[in-house]
Amino acid sequence: MKLYFVTGNKEKFREVKHILEGFDVEQLDIDLPELQGEPADIVKEKAKLAAEKTGKSVFVEDTSLCFNALGGLPGPYVKDFIKKIGIKGLYELASKYPDVGAVAVCSIGYCEPGKKPLVFQGRIKGKIVSPRGDTRFQWDQILMPEGYDITFSEMSMEDKNKISHRKLAFEEFRKWLEKM
Amino acid sequence: MKLYFVTGNKEKFREVKHILEGFDVEQLDIDLPELQGEPADIVKEKAKLAAEKTGKSVFVEDTSLCFNALGGLPGPYVKDFIKKIGIKGLYELASKYPDVGAVAVCSIGYCEPGKKPLVFQGRIKGKIVSPRGDTRFQWDQILMPEGYDITFSEMSMEDKNKISHRKLAFEEFRKWLEKM
Repeated sequence: MKLYFVTGNKEKFREVKHILEGFDVEQLDIDLPELQGEPADIVKEKAKLAAEKTGKSVFVEDTSLCFNALGGLPGPYVKDFIKKIGIKGLYELASKYPDVGAVAVCSIGYCEPGKKPLVFQGRIKGKIVSPRGDTRFQWDQILMPEGYDITFSEMSMEDKNKISHRKLAFEEFRKWLEKM
Repeated sequence: MKLYFVTGNKEKFREVKHILEGFDVEQLDIDLPELQGEPADIVKEKAKLAAEKTGKSVFVEDTSLCFNALGGLPGPYVKDFIKKIGIKGLYELASKYPDVGAVAVCSIGYCEPGKKPLVFQGRIKGKIVSPRGDTRFQWDQILMPEGYDITFSEMSMEDKNKISHRKLAFEEFRKWLEKM
């Protein structure tokens, strides 16, 4: 069975194709609305829309950064926060609260046409620190995973990909696909 | 021409029907995804989806609370913030910054089938204060409009409706409709 990953990002597609080696995965670059809500509901609804629109078995991915002090927000809206107040502003926001704990969540929504969408998630706990490391990956600069004294941005790509929320989510997805 | 206001809220429908007296307005209670993005883009996209889905001339409305200190956020995500940290938490968030200024924005998206959507907006500036007044209208309790020493929640409905962002937005919409 062919699976379609809805993303405009070729880099991300290559990474995911690698994690899902052995499965027939193709990129599908279609315009879908960005939705509000809980991370799991966002990807469910988005996968459903994509399956309806294309008639294919599709999956979508979304990443959230959830501050403990803000009840899980900015969550899926973290991209907007970075756009409006920057990475430094995001760090400053977290640092105004006594609890700087955060969770990074990767959510995958999978949907076959006419069926109910499924969700697979990966989470990693950490804390928000002042920006450091490679600036390419946005909030990787301010997230220090639990048990580490460096941020995601300061890790090698290889080390990060061993523990990351995205890796964990795609492993769940892969396990489910293997059982099917 | 018949216009359809997409809302599940009967109270809001009645209020808007009153503001648009003289026009043939009906309520349309359909499920549309809540979208992310800039307030103007959210209602444009939503109106377009509704017009495509129903084949009717439709309008939708969305309200944002934009903090100066957060570059306009939480903006359209204010409902999520209230759900997660409450009205008091929203006030506390604003009060951690030296600038407690905010803007309330009402955005109306209007779309006729097959045409480009239009946007009408109303704004009122104010500042965020600790919650006071009638608790029915969510963040009305913490928004003190410029030139006033009471919050929206402490005003009579009549007084609020003379100056509110929603009133201003629907007046713009009404003016446009009258020219058509």
